[in-house]
Amino acid sequence: MAAVSRGTRHTLATLAAAVERRGRGGLTARILGDQAIEIDAVAPLESAHPRELGFLANARYRNAARASSAGALVMTADDADALKWPAGTTPVLVLCAQPYAWFAFAAQELQPEASLVPGIHPRAEIDPLAILAEGVRIEAGAVVAAGAQIGAGCWIGARATVGKNSRIGAGSRLFAGATVLDGCRLGERCIVHPGAVIGADGFGFASFDGGWVKIPQSGAVIIGNDVEIGANTTIDRGTMGDTVIEDGVKIDNQVQVGHNCRIGAATVVAGCTGIAGSAIIGRRCQLGGAAMIHGHISICDDTIVSGGTLISRSIATPGFYSGVFPFMPNREWERNAALLRHLQELRGRIRALEAQVGVGASGPKDDA
Amino acid sequence: MAAVSRGTRHTLATLAAAVERRGRGGLTARILGDQAIEIDAVAPLESAHPRELGFLANARYRNAARASSAGALVMTADDADALKWPAGTTPVLVLCAQPYAWFAFAAQELQPEASLVPGIHPRAEIDPLAILAEGVRIEAGAVVAAGAQIGAGCWIGARATVGKNSRIGAGSRLFAGATVLDGCRLGERCIVHPGAVIGADGFGFASFDGGWVKIPQSGAVIIGNDVEIGANTTIDRGTMGDTVIEDGVKIDNQVQVGHNCRIGAATVVAGCTGIAGSAIIGRRCQLGGAAMIHGHISICDDTIVSGGTLISRSIATPGFYSGVFPFMPNREWERNAALLRHLQELRGRIRALEAQVGVGASGPKDDA
Amino acid sequence: MAAVSRGTRHTLATLAAAVERRGRGGLTARILGDQAIEIDAVAPLESAHPRELGFLANARYRNAARASSAGALVMTADDADALKWPAGTTPVLVLCAQPYAWFAFAAQELQPEASLVPGIHPRAEIDPLAILAEGVRIEAGAVVAAGAQIGAGCWIGARATVGKNSRIGAGSRLFAGATVLDGCRLGERCIVHPGAVIGADGFGFASFDGGWVKIPQSGAVIIGNDVEIGANTTIDRGTMGDTVIEDGVKIDNQVQVGHNCRIGAATVVAGCTGIAGSAIIGRRCQLGGAAMIHGHISICDDTIVSGGTLISRSIATPGFYSGVFPFMPNREWERNAALLRHLQELRGRIRALEAQVGVGASGPKDDA
Repeated sequence: MAAVSRGTRHTLATLAAAVERRGRGGLTARILGDQAIEIDAVAPLESAHPRELGFLANARYRNAARASSAGALVMTADDADALKWPAGTTPVLVLCAQPYAWFAFAAQELQPEASLVPGIHPRAEIDPLAILAEGVRIEAGAVVAAGAQIGAGCWIGARATVGKNSRIGAGSRLFAGATVLDGCRLGERCIVHPGAVIGADGFGFASFDGGWVKIPQSGAVIIGNDVEIGANTTIDRGTMGDTVIEDGVKIDNQVQVGHNCRIGAATVVAGCTGIAGSAIIGRRCQLGGAAMIHGHISICDDTIVSGGTLISRSIATPGFYSGVFPFMPNREWERNAALLRHLQELRGRIRALEAQVGVGASGPKDDA
Repeated sequence: MAAVSRGTRHTLATLAAAVERRGRGGLTARILGDQAIEIDAVAPLESAHPRELGFLANARYRNAARASSAGALVMTADDADALKWPAGTTPVLVLCAQPYAWFAFAAQELQPEASLVPGIHPRAEIDPLAILAEGVRIEAGAVVAAGAQIGAGCWIGARATVGKNSRIGAGSRLFAGATVLDGCRLGERCIVHPGAVIGADGFGFASFDGGWVKIPQSGAVIIGNDVEIGANTTIDRGTMGDTVIEDGVKIDNQVQVGHNCRIGAATVVAGCTGIAGSAIIGRRCQLGGAAMIHGHISICDDTIVSGGTLISRSIATPGFYSGVFPFMPNREWERNAALLRHLQELRGRIRALEAQVGVGASGPKDDA
Repeated sequence: MAAVSRGTRHTLATLAAAVERRGRGGLTARILGDQAIEIDAVAPLESAHPRELGFLANARYRNAARASSAGALVMTADDADALKWPAGTTPVLVLCAQPYAWFAFAAQELQPEASLVPGIHPRAEIDPLAILAEGVRIEAGAVVAAGAQIGAGCWIGARATVGKNSRIGAGSRLFAGATVLDGCRLGERCIVHPGAVIGADGFGFASFDGGWVKIPQSGAVIIGNDVEIGANTTIDRGTMGDTVIEDGVKIDNQVQVGHNCRIGAATVVAGCTGIAGSAIIGRRCQLGGAAMIHGHISICDDTIVSGGTLISRSIATPGFYSGVFPFMPNREWERNAALLRHLQELRGRIRALEAQVGVGASGPKDDA
């Protein structure tokens, strides 16, 4: 395990108070048992020790919770009712409506991020025309170009690059080797993981004379507050107008976001997803891993797309959408895939049978 | 929007002359209306102002063109005929056969690329045995190894790396953090976006003794002129012999090109596509986003592959190929996917019916 | 071709001895013909010259082997028996049970890797609290943080980054721009290609109050010996507990490995594959390119997954699994995809026919 710096020492009572503070009052919990026990860390149910906190957010893991040696367990009252510990063995319970969120804040409290030590490394390359706010940390090999603005408390990692006239909002962190190109803007408290590229040219060419003429990509990438962007993810600048990522969007690793896309607030995009140019994704959507979204379509708010699904048309009704060939043993797949190529013939044979037998299937069903 | 430097001031007449020059005479246009109007920029139809140029290249957007406030609109004569403006409100029209190409050249003229200021940054690391031509720009943190040759007017961005004995043709640009490994060659006027890796080892191992023996990857990557390579794209070196990307190929972000592939001239490869080793892609092909191409197959010239399609066998006939499970609401998908696993049983039931009824379907149809 | 440094000059006899040594006695071969011929290099069958070695490991290429001008050919005795050369034209043959492995070791002998020249570049940034073993090479722009341990004979490429308290085992190589984040560990003789990111945060958030609360990612990435990690591949650190890559795993480019995954020894993962968090992959598995593995599932040892297949449930039986929509001309695909949406209706029509005709299909078959 990584040598993670531990935070303040906590009893369960002080931890609960800290969680309530972090949740701005939106999370209340009822503690059953000894609030004075000390809690050092969070841990998985299977490996948790008596000084560690575990959580149960999915009824599937009730058995693991019952068997856990965690000193305290966060769960809903319903889960606690369903679990029967042998007399005298019940762990301390933290009952709340949103145990996973409670646990997340507890983990943040117990395992705080590495704290920022301000300072500009002598081997960082800062253009004299860059503007740095207070309390900034810029590490070795980082490059900050002319006109770039780095907000208060930003942390620019080793070898990260901030292009001309770009702006990084206060409290944001660029990890090692992240690249923000000219003229792009990030809001506050954003996290950009290593190797991510924000603001490369969109993919736009006009066919001409047997080849391709490049369309200049003159828009930017505009990113809201509290956005997280995964390692080696790429977000292209707009062709004309901008690519926009709204507040609170979380994007995983290896994702491609094309030029002029807009991703609505609080949407999450899992790894390896590709979003083609000018796609508009609503708010609070969830795109599963390796989903593919066609260009120039719109997906409404609160849409969930299964991993591996290609969305080829706009979606106007919130819901859960899928489209993946089910996996099976290869020989079986070969047979089914071959038959799939002949669905029309199967339909034809059904029609012929219907005609022969006189079943009245020639109405609307015939579309199928 | 990015603070893009504007080019020369233009009237529509001077702009048209510049486009004709850029198109080397291959693009002629007829202007209807006042050629003396000033044009500052290109813009989308919806947001264009009277000093901006819009374009219509798809009949689907005719309504947007009719409603646009652009000072001038590029389109075909057919589209212009189909659009009826209220008397006195017709914008200035630029009529030509290839409006998108005309527009592209106009955009290049109005929004020229940032101009190269030659110079070697003191924090670039240039090996004494590297060979730099005239007018080269090499930025902070870039590394150019022994024997590397950098052509005239090249721009090597911050933290880009050029390996030993590699060659970058005149007028090419490597953006921040791009990596060209030892012995690879790029032609003239190539663009390599941030984080792209050209010439990493191909993926080749021989099974032996319960493990894997690495096959040395001793080929290179050879790239023609006018090739564009997207952010975080990877192109592997050949195992024996080279990986070859011909002139005018355009590759988007997050693409993987395996060892010993050949991609024919003027082919375009959209984002997230994977091309496995030793695949041969023809000229003027278009591979949609997240397409997957098996290794050791050939795809003929002028083939179009839909996004998300896996090409598992060679294609010898030019055309448009697809193979994607259509997306649908998840519950419906679950039912259809389950039935898909039982196509053979459905066929068996049809056969049984045919036998019972005496329909003569037992001939060649029985393959389906 | 890359200017690859050639190794020692070899006759076929000395080469065979070297292969036997590299294979630690596990590979024996019988040579038919003149063992004194000189061999300079390995080459593809089609282009091999008389001083080059070719191989045949797949009966499909027998014709190419027969037509090859290679001075010597490695193959099985069976293949040699099947090939009939015109009298007097048989090349020298190296017969062995595992020709591809024999060839791989021969190639390693003939085309040795660039040899490491130890030394710390003055423009590498080494924290005084980093610990470097003997014979290490660290190139320009590399960054090694406090507490990092670099094993004997490691090669840290230009602009590579090694985070705090991480450990790189002896004989490992990080190529240009590779990033290993804080607290991660690599075993001995690992190879990390350019742009790979090891140890970025896993993708974990709890829903709260219309947004997302970040789960601190406090685990690490633990990598065994002899692991190879492709260009721009990303391997996330564990949330709690670690992400583990066992000995001898080979991972291609553009792969995403989520938090808390475990990949068993000697498994190979082809390019563009995505493995979601907490997936457990067995030993000696082979995941084809662009495969997608759901989170929180287990795949048993010796499983092969076809390229492009999404594995959505655990696999408990070793075997070869597939699930890809077959590609076809687009118009045909459109029709088949449309029918696929109506499989239930086709089944309903079959049922109606069966009822009408009186075929007894209403038993278990009715599930299909």
